[in-house]
Amino acid sequence: MTGRLYALGTGPGASDLITVRAARIIGKLDVLFAPAGRKGGDSLALSIVREYLSDTTEVRTCHFPMSADNDEKAVVWDETAAALKHEVEQGKQVGFITLGDSMLFSTWVFLLARMGNPEWLEIVPGVTSFAAIASRAQLPLAMEQQSMAVMSCTASHQELTQALRSHDCVVLMKVYGRFAQIKALLQHLELIDHAVLMAEATLPGEQCWRSLDDVPDDQKLPYFSTILVNKQWRR
Amino acid sequence: MTGRLYALGTGPGASDLITVRAARIIGKLDVLFAPAGRKGGDSLALSIVREYLSDTTEVRTCHFPMSADNDEKAVVWDETAAALKHEVEQGKQVGFITLGDSMLFSTWVFLLARMGNPEWLEIVPGVTSFAAIASRAQLPLAMEQQSMAVMSCTASHQELTQALRSHDCVVLMKVYGRFAQIKALLQHLELIDHAVLMAEATLPGEQCWRSLDDVPDDQKLPYFSTILVNKQWRR
Repeated sequence: MTGRLYALGTGPGASDLITVRAARIIGKLDVLFAPAGRKGGDSLALSIVREYLSDTTEVRTCHFPMSADNDEKAVVWDETAAALKHEVEQGKQVGFITLGDSMLFSTWVFLLARMGNPEWLEIVPGVTSFAAIASRAQLPLAMEQQSMAVMSCTASHQELTQALRSHDCVVLMKVYGRFAQIKALLQHLELIDHAVLMAEATLPGEQCWRSLDDVPDDQKLPYFSTILVNKQWRR
Repeated sequence: MTGRLYALGTGPGASDLITVRAARIIGKLDVLFAPAGRKGGDSLALSIVREYLSDTTEVRTCHFPMSADNDEKAVVWDETAAALKHEVEQGKQVGFITLGDSMLFSTWVFLLARMGNPEWLEIVPGVTSFAAIASRAQLPLAMEQQSMAVMSCTASHQELTQALRSHDCVVLMKVYGRFAQIKALLQHLELIDHAVLMAEATLPGEQCWRSLDDVPDDQKLPYFSTILVNKQWRR
């Protein structure tokens, strides 16, 4: 059998928001690589796909350091890319899972950059977190001639302001630790009534705040927290 | 049994790129509403979900006019929203399908606007076309601190230029009929080597052009054609 590598988006969190294709592929894998947030820690992506796994699939969790040291990260990416390639060369069916979609804000892309575009690679897209947030909050994303920007809240004040001024719909990811500044910016731009804040969408701990004016500046937020702004839709 | 309405994203085109949740819900529906491009015409969304349908599900295709006459459109949206609500009130399990994700560039949002947020409504997200395009073209979307804009090529030259200047990754939807202008803009901004053009991603007629310089200005393109630009990734 010819070895193949599948990069699989697991979707936002609920197990049944994975695609039928990804679920079927996971069921026939020889080896599954799953990223874990901490060394030896649990993998959220793995917990999402566990019900589709065959008993015979070998599972390997891999830890990608969050450190600012790019050299340290590069070593881990090099090693993981080599390990994936090695398994494929043994003729195995190999999977690598990532939360959400494989090609958006995903560690997988660092591995892809080290692999080129080999014939034995298939990438399977997944539902993005912001699509799940829009569905759960019943707040639309862009429609018709409108435009959408997806920003990280780590961007500069100027970049965030420009995105909020230029686009009808703005997804503000990585709100964690920056809520007070983002809230003040939305108030300043008179967009606070067009925003919702959601944490851990589709997971058991899902929380949704629809009135951001009432959320305290020092509100403790989970790591997966996102603000969705739609200028054309007032809550 | 209590009636429920499910707004279901079918994903980009391939039947197995629907979510497991949507496939399961479709299998237990009493009535499925499927939008058709032309009156009496086929519904692409329906062809995607047909294999998950139960024999007992009643299928109704509905046609939403593409006309510029907003009053004519509003009448059809009013009627369809009323029809969906009527079925739910009969205690039925009712589905409404849309291509891609339910909340992004989707007719469904016009129906949502007429319904408010009733308890009997559940929206199920889907894989967006641009996530599928990125996977198929093996061209990443935004990563880490980068940002992404999703634009319609019907936007003004100035808006498109600003988006291409401001964001690392830009999705240019609705290229159909506007390819020559967009190509010239990408050449002017020296972004042509960072772009791919894809039509009908994940469908049998999928086409991908990686060297946009070589695509003739008058190239005939299918309706579902999109350009993906990633400044940080040269093909």
